[in-house]
This record gives sequence, structure tokens and C-alpha cells, in this order.
Amino acid sequence: MSSEKRNSYRSNGRKNSKPTSANSSFKEKKPVKKPKNNYGGKKNKQEIKKPSIKVAFLGGLNEIGKNITLFEYEGDIVLLDCGMAFPDGDMLGVDLVIPDFTYVEQNIDRVRGLVVTHGHEDHIGGIPFLLSKANIPIYGTPLTIGLLGNKLKEHSLFNFAKLNVVNAGSRIKLGCFDVEFIHVNHSIPDSVAIALHTPAGTVVHSGDFKIDCTPFLGEMIDLHAFARLGHEGVLAFFCESTNADRPGYTSSEQMITRSLDNLFNEASKNRIIIATFASNVNRVQQIIDCAEKYKRKVALSGRSMVNYMTVAKELGYLHVPENIMIDIDMLGKYNPEQVVLITTGSQGEPMSALSRMAYSDHRKVVVGEGDFIIISANPIPGNEKTVGNVVDELLKRGCTVIYESMYEVHVSGHACQEELKILQKLVNAKYFIPVHGEQKHLRKNAALAQSLGVDRKNIYIGDIGSHIEINEDYIKELPPVPAGKVFVDGLGVGDVGSIVLRDRKHLAQDGLIIIVASLDVYDGHVISGPDIVSRGFVYVRESEALLDKIREVSLRILEDCADNNIHEWGTIKNRIRDEVSRMITRETRRSPMILPILQEV
Amino acid sequence: MSSEKRNSYRSNGRKNSKPTSANSSFKEKKPVKKPKNNYGGKKNKQEIKKPSIKVAFLGGLNEIGKNITLFEYEGDIVLLDCGMAFPDGDMLGVDLVIPDFTYVEQNIDRVRGLVVTHGHEDHIGGIPFLLSKANIPIYGTPLTIGLLGNKLKEHSLFNFAKLNVVNAGSRIKLGCFDVEFIHVNHSIPDSVAIALHTPAGTVVHSGDFKIDCTPFLGEMIDLHAFARLGHEGVLAFFCESTNADRPGYTSSEQMITRSLDNLFNEASKNRIIIATFASNVNRVQQIIDCAEKYKRKVALSGRSMVNYMTVAKELGYLHVPENIMIDIDMLGKYNPEQVVLITTGSQGEPMSALSRMAYSDHRKVVVGEGDFIIISANPIPGNEKTVGNVVDELLKRGCTVIYESMYEVHVSGHACQEELKILQKLVNAKYFIPVHGEQKHLRKNAALAQSLGVDRKNIYIGDIGSHIEINEDYIKELPPVPAGKVFVDGLGVGDVGSIVLRDRKHLAQDGLIIIVASLDVYDGHVISGPDIVSRGFVYVRESEALLDKIREVSLRILEDCADNNIHEWGTIKNRIRDEVSRMITRETRRSPMILPILQEV
Repeated sequence: MSSEKRNSYRSNGRKNSKPTSANSSFKEKKPVKKPKNNYGGKKNKQEIKKPSIKVAFLGGLNEIGKNITLFEYEGDIVLLDCGMAFPDGDMLGVDLVIPDFTYVEQNIDRVRGLVVTHGHEDHIGGIPFLLSKANIPIYGTPLTIGLLGNKLKEHSLFNFAKLNVVNAGSRIKLGCFDVEFIHVNHSIPDSVAIALHTPAGTVVHSGDFKIDCTPFLGEMIDLHAFARLGHEGVLAFFCESTNADRPGYTSSEQMITRSLDNLFNEASKNRIIIATFASNVNRVQQIIDCAEKYKRKVALSGRSMVNYMTVAKELGYLHVPENIMIDIDMLGKYNPEQVVLITTGSQGEPMSALSRMAYSDHRKVVVGEGDFIIISANPIPGNEKTVGNVVDELLKRGCTVIYESMYEVHVSGHACQEELKILQKLVNAKYFIPVHGEQKHLRKNAALAQSLGVDRKNIYIGDIGSHIEINEDYIKELPPVPAGKVFVDGLGVGDVGSIVLRDRKHLAQDGLIIIVASLDVYDGHVISGPDIVSRGFVYVRESEALLDKIREVSLRILEDCADNNIHEWGTIKNRIRDEVSRMITRETRRSPMILPILQEV
Repeated sequence: MSSEKRNSYRSNGRKNSKPTSANSSFKEKKPVKKPKNNYGGKKNKQEIKKPSIKVAFLGGLNEIGKNITLFEYEGDIVLLDCGMAFPDGDMLGVDLVIPDFTYVEQNIDRVRGLVVTHGHEDHIGGIPFLLSKANIPIYGTPLTIGLLGNKLKEHSLFNFAKLNVVNAGSRIKLGCFDVEFIHVNHSIPDSVAIALHTPAGTVVHSGDFKIDCTPFLGEMIDLHAFARLGHEGVLAFFCESTNADRPGYTSSEQMITRSLDNLFNEASKNRIIIATFASNVNRVQQIIDCAEKYKRKVALSGRSMVNYMTVAKELGYLHVPENIMIDIDMLGKYNPEQVVLITTGSQGEPMSALSRMAYSDHRKVVVGEGDFIIISANPIPGNEKTVGNVVDELLKRGCTVIYESMYEVHVSGHACQEELKILQKLVNAKYFIPVHGEQKHLRKNAALAQSLGVDRKNIYIGDIGSHIEINEDYIKELPPVPAGKVFVDGLGVGDVGSIVLRDRKHLAQDGLIIIVASLDVYDGHVISGPDIVSRGFVYVRESEALLDKIREVSLRILEDCADNNIHEWGTIKNRIRDEVSRMITRETRRSPMILPILQEV
């Protein structure tokens, strides 16, 4: 640990004269092409530039969310995922965050397609915003495309979009990319990793994955495919890092079946309410199965829960016994022990169904004594407090709440250290590039690769905007490409930037004081006002003396300026702002925004 | 769990005819007094009301922080602690939160003193605000009073305050309360629990505690005293609940000595920077000892760290070898392996020393490769994200950062479940009242008491404002007393309330639009304006069309009102607000605050 250094993960571009055996085996596949920018005449063999793949990271590094990576080979580009992120606490009023698509737009002629690994928001949530700029054809597995289609309908983009279903295990051609879809385990069905076969070699992107040898639904991750790729030779492995700081293994989803069974037994006299991620089709299936066993009806609560499950059911990913589902309005017709309510809100989101129940604000469900509430999810970092508050409110209402990890009602969808190491060893790539995580996760994943013997020079930790070139000889950084966070607020995309956010923060902190006066167009003397309006500063009725003082100070400055023939409004406003601000700081130690507004009459 | 019910913890006030053996033994001490409100003539023995203690909770229940409890017996009142809390994320612009002192003020004639259990902010931080209302004499152990004195100097209250030093193991008389100070282990030296001996029986308050059989400094918690009290008979035990949801034991502080030693060895070539709580004198002592062993100089960073350590050193709680401390300005004169910097900021607080280093904003310390940074603290719930961000920034700068629990560089200051059970059994009180915690902690602590055989009727979970009466026969709820959160913002105490906060939230979410116009005093027609000013809404230069539209709509309404002889400003402003708001929602899906301001000329 002590000798870990950031820069040392970066390639210095020096040639590595000894390719590994894996690399030498894939050499056979690669035709020696004349490099694009080799303007000179004949060169000797050592100097011919090997064909290379370029990779641009537009999101998902040093952040959780908005995953999007761009792979370039010669004249072709393939995009991998296009997600959104949720705003941080300091992005006031922002609804969601999407990638900056400038680099995609600049190279749109070369973009052959967007390949999507699975149907989570951090992988598909940015697509509607991308499509409104460029109608790129999209490729994904059936459930992923089904969920995306649903989302595009909400944005009225469904008929316009070019959606293509590809099954795991299949390959498609996008330009000179041969794109292989590989089945993996994750917390949503139909997740895939992607191998991109190119004349410069093969690169593999893990997508989000874990290794579950006994998944609740479907097959185990296709480790054979990763083994085959490793055997054939992989140039670079882009590996997700979400759980890279967790030792050991993620438990199998089978465990949850046992836990749920125990809890259904314990709550045999209670109404059961279970909160989980709306997209967790497996979890919902487990709950439905358990409900069937214990002869309970099932209702769904939360718009996104209903949406996800409708698509999953239509496409055959959710198996619902006949007559088990009831509308949420029908809950009252059954005894508590006859029903299970599956709801959103496992992260304590303020507007979610579970939060509304906790704060007695749900239109259809009133919770209280006799309710047995299971939170089948862990708080995502940053949500611990809101989840804790919801639990407290439910407890105060007399509910029993199962939220602690000891009840084993949740497993992560992401690989822990041992799983990461297994996949890294199977893929056995020359270059290791940790993705999908904050700096601490990327570094931990890099440290795992190093512990497996990967040379530090062959590990690259990037940032959003990083642009790299990889070939058999080197991995090197190119000048960065445009990348960043674009804020979506209401219908506005990108119209809230740093200035607007700075103002919101200022207003949030200490409110504002508006000073309005009408001035005589001829001599600048005050005709009306100054009137003082404040919001979010002090409770006005109890602070009239202070507001009077502000009025006095402002009036004095205005009259003084008029007397001294100072008519430049910028100057006058600055004097008001400065003096009032000084006075308020002295009297209150606060710094409200001060807005002098002058009108000429 | 499934049968836990909130109300069932509340006593129904019915008499319990079978006192426990503990209670019968303490009966001997209690003189049979004529109850205060026994207006009738002779009654038979069963009907005589037993003397009772009343307890009012002004803070610390359903919240972490601002602990303050009020004990009443007849004409005497003793206050226990008077802390502050940090604002939640939705208390925009609030600096700190203190209790509502109304009930103390209403009963000030009966208040005999304030007893303080230890020197943490959540136990002493509210005292300056209380003293400015009533100069109550204060009693605490030497370090607690030393730290409090320091705080009162900052508020210019030191000379005015009546501070009294009491050593653990001693007793003082406050009215008819016989107050016993009992030594406990915690994350700050000189912490005590309090036993209040009264004619109605003895009540014990744990303060903050843990059981550390091998503390780094000082003695183990005085379990003998608790055993003696239990043997004599205790009416009610008020027990802290912070870690009531953690199974097992809190590890001994001795463990940290080993961990630090290992890390100092590992970082033998590096500069070491350790962040911990400013008040954790033991931890700082351990670091200084380790520095001495490895021949490193020690510097302190962060105002509160320097403050705490100055007091601790003066009072002999911190033992500093000669010539080991250096000023932070001198760091540059030494090689990295010759120094240790102890700093605040272990919670990622934005203005703290460590955060400033992470974001390259510290005036004196620049961190980078070669720095070995240890975060010797766990994130307090709600701070996970900010701590994570600071770690990420430090990693990006090339620092090595030790932050994971596996390195065992921190232990909690609070008792886990096994310790809580031991103290509960030793005290062996008739009534159990969990305090200091959110609902989930209080309930877990209550469940522990139940698991030890305490009757559910004898367990009381309160809220701030709860007022209870306890005697040998019953525990019952009285009508609540005034209690709440008083916000301190700058110099203002209590002048930021729900309306101001609501406005700040509104402004934070979508900013504001101000519409200013001067109207003709005679006919109401527009003379100047309407001018549109916006802040925190959209980036104005890119949204001129929208602002023009707002101006047009406003002008139309103003002229329409003038034409139709509508001169009532409330009506005019409402029409502007409604129409502009509708238009903006339609065009942007946002809801900025809209402030029409009219002036008559």
C-alpha cells in the first residue's frame, strides 16, 4: 500500500519487448496493417506502428453512475452503455446527471452502434438524451431492450429509435468490431459482458457482474467464454470495481430464499411489506414464490416497480402464478396475513412509496402495528441517513422493521475481491483497466490485478475525459476528450451550470435580501422605496428593526450618490451591496445574497 | 421482534403490587412522606401516593445529539447535560441546533444546578446558550469543566459562569438531590455516569460509556459502584443507546496501540498524517507515544484540535514529552519520516484541515505522493459520502490512505450490546429508559432490557418533550413539556424557523424570479418595468427568450389590471405569480420562487 503511486499506474508509452504468451497467441489472428498515419516511406519492421484501439471514457470513472465508454478502431466507433447518475447533495435542484456527449457528436459519422450491457439506469438512463442528439442504433439483450423501450416510450422516442435484440452468446458486426455478448450474473436478468474483437486484438468489458454458481433464476455466469477469450488472448480487460474494496465473495442469491422463508414464518400473523430495488426482477420473483408458498396475495407499489415488472413479465423473465397479483386498492379486502406488498423506496428516497408510508403520506397504504416491513437492499453510500430516518419513522408507527444485514435479506449484484480475481485470471489480459467506481474502488481493483502479477505499467487508472491508445506494444494516454457532468433539471438539459448552482447554494445558505427603489430619471433621487423584501434570511416579523436599518443604509447611499452626481447603476448597486452586506455580517454573522434593483422613472 | 409494539413500552400507570427484591431493599431508605397533592383526610395505607421523581426529556431522544434531561423532585430540579446537535442536510444554512429551553426558564427558580457527564459537544455545546438565559451553577469533572471553560471564554461567559469541579467518586448535594459521580470509560477522559439519590429512590443515568477493561489511559469503568447501586436498589436506569444495534463488545483501546505501531513501521519512509476527533485525548496520546517511539516530531492541525489538546495538557490529561511538539509551520524543516501531523477532519467536514489538504486548499500543508494518511475514526451516519470524497481526493493526489475498518485504527466510545447488558444487570433497576439515540437505537436497547427479563410495562421509550413521573408503584406519562430544535445561524438564535427554512429549500431547488414594476399612483399603469431579475433559475444569457416571455406576461397582467380598475396589489401580485408560474412549469418543468414587487410612483 505505502508504495502505491498514482502515476505509476500510467503507461509511459515505452515499448514492451516481451509480449506475454497470451498475447503471442492472439498475434496470429491479427493481420499486419499499414498504420493510418504512417506517411513516410518504407520503415524497418520494428518501427511499423502496430494497429491500435483507442478508448475514450465519458463517464463511470471517479464516480458511481453514468457509465459510458467509447471504443475506436480506425474509422469505426462502438459505444458501450450510456447511463445517468443521481445528483450529489451539492447539486441543488438537479434531477439527474448525464454524460457530456460532445465527443460522440464530434465523431458521429464513425459511430456504428451503442451496445448496452444491462437495463439499470446507470447504464441506459442517458440514452434518451443521446438519441435526441443522434439516432445511434442500439444493441442489447431482450430484457435490456424491453426496459429501454419502455423508457423511450416515456420520452416519445420509441418509434424513432433503432433497437436491436441480441442474445447472450451471440456476436454481431459493428464496422470492423466483432461484438460478442457474454452472459454474466448481476442483480437484473439478461446482463452481459462484452468482448470486442478487432484487428488490433480483443478487449473485454465486464459490464456489471458477479459470480453466482447457484443463481435464483437463469444460468451461472458464462465462465467458459471468459476462459476461451483468455486462452485466445486478450489485449485489455476493462473490469468493474464497485465492490473491489470488499474481501471475499458475494453470497449466492439462494441464501435470500432461506432468509425470506424464515421471515415469512416469523410474520405469519402480520401484513408483510418488502422494499427492494424496482429493477431487481430476481428478488421480486423470490418474494412472489414465497408468497405463493405461504398463500399470500401480492400487490406492487411504486410506479417504477410496476413498470419494471410489467416488462419483465411480458418478456417471460417474471413468472407470476395465476390469481396471485392483486391491485394495491384491494389490500384492504384481505387480512394482514393474506398479503405481501412489494414496494420501491429501499433507499429512503423522499418521494418513494415506502417513504410516503413512513411519513403517513401514502394515498393507499397506512402502516402501523402489525406491519412487518423488510428492507431487502443495502443503503447505497450517501443514503444511510435517509434510509435510517425511514426506518425510525416506521418503528415509531409501531411497525416491525427488518433492515439489518444480519437478516441476510439482500446480496449485492457486484463481484467482491475473490470473484474479481477469478475473472481477471480467466481473461488474463495484457492491460488491466479498472472501471465503474470512485478512486478508492479503482485503486483497490488495480491492487488486486497487481497482486495477481500484472505489471504496474500495464495497469491504467483513468478519469472521465481520459483518452487512451492500446496496442500490443504499449498503452498510452492521448490528449483528453470533452467530458463532464451535464445537469438535467426539469425539461432543461445543460442549462443549469456552475453559476446557477453557485447562486442556489448561496440562496440555500442564508437566503436573500432585495432592495428596490425607483429613481428620478433626471436627478437620480429616490422617488419610491427603497423597499426591502427578504426570503430565507430571517423571520421578517421579528426582525423589523434590522430591515429598517437596511432601508436606511440603502436610502442614504442612494441620496448620497444622487447628490454627488453618481448615476452609474453598477457603482450605486455595488455600494449598496457592500455596505448592507457589511452591516448584516456585523449584526448577524450571515451573508445573504443582496440584490439591489433600481428603476428609472 | 414481530410482536414489539411501541405503546406497549408505555406504562399504563396501573399499580404493580409485587415489587422486585431490589425494590424492596431500597424501600428501607425511603421515608414515607406525605404526598404533595394529598388534599383529602386520612386514607388507608394503600392509597397514599408514594413520593415520585419527574423527568422531562428536552433532547437526545429520536436524535443523535443535544442531550439534556431534567430531573425534578418536589421543589428541586437538576439538569443533566446540555448539548448541541449538528444540523441535518435539510436544515439549510443552520450552523448548529440547540434545545428549546422554555421549560427550564419556566422553572428556573427550582433549578439547583446543571451536572455535566463529559466534555463532548453533544453534552456541553448548548451551555453558552443556556447561560445567556439563566446562570445555573455547573458541576463536572476537571477535564469537562476545563473544556467547558474554554468554550465559555469564546462566548465571553467565563467570568460570569459558576463552574464547579467534582471528581469521579464524589457526591454533591443539589437541593434534595444527592448527586453521585461515577467513573466510566468513553472516548474522552474524565467521563462519568450520574446517580441521583432522592427520597423517592435512586435513578442512574449512564451518560456515554463503554466497558474497557484495559483502557489506554486511566482506570476501567467503576463497575463496583454500579454493583453497589444495584444492590442498594435503583428505581430507574437511563441508559445510552448509541451502539445498541451492534452485537458483541467494543474492542479495547489497547488494540489501537498495536495497529498504530504496525502502520508506523509500514510507513517508515513516509510523512504520517492522522485524522481523528479533536476531543479524543486518548487517541492523540497514543499517537504521541508512537511518535516518540519512532523518533518523530508531532504537529497539530485544526483549531479545535489545538484547543482541546491545550486544555488536556494543562490539566495533565495529555502527557507530552519535551521537544516533541513542533509548530505546523516547521513541518517543512523536517524530512517526511521525521514527522507526524495530527489533524481534524476525520468526518470529511468541508472546512476542516484534512478536507482542505485533500482539495489543495490548506495554507500550510500540501499533500501528495509519500504521504501516509490514517483516518482514525469511523464515519458518523450521514458522513459516509463526504468522508469517501475526501479519501478519493487524497488517493488522486497519490497519498496512501488507511481508512478501512480492517486496519483497526479506531474503536467506538460507546458500549455494544454485551456491555449494555452487563451494566443493565449490574444496575438492576425497576424501570428501564433507553436514551441517547434514534428510534432504532432506543428500541434495540429496550429489546436488550426485555431479553434480560425486564417487564415490558417497566420500559419507557420517550421522545423529546416527554414528561414522566416515576415512583415505586408506577411509571406514567404526564402532559408533554415544550421541547424542540432551536436553530443557531450566525449570531441568530431561534430566528430561523420553518418559514425561513421552507423558503431556503424552495430557493435551493429552483432559484427565484423577481418581477419589478413601477406603477402610476393614479391609474395603476406601468411607468417603469416590468424588469425581470433571476438567480439560481437558468443561465440568463442562454434563456433570454424565456425571460422576455415572463416580461410580456407580467406586463399584460399589469396593464389588464389597470384597465379594469384592479388596484389591490395582493390581487395583482397573485395573478402575476400564478400565470408566470404556470408558464414556467409548462416550458421548463421547474418551480422557481416568483416574487412580484410593485412600487407606486
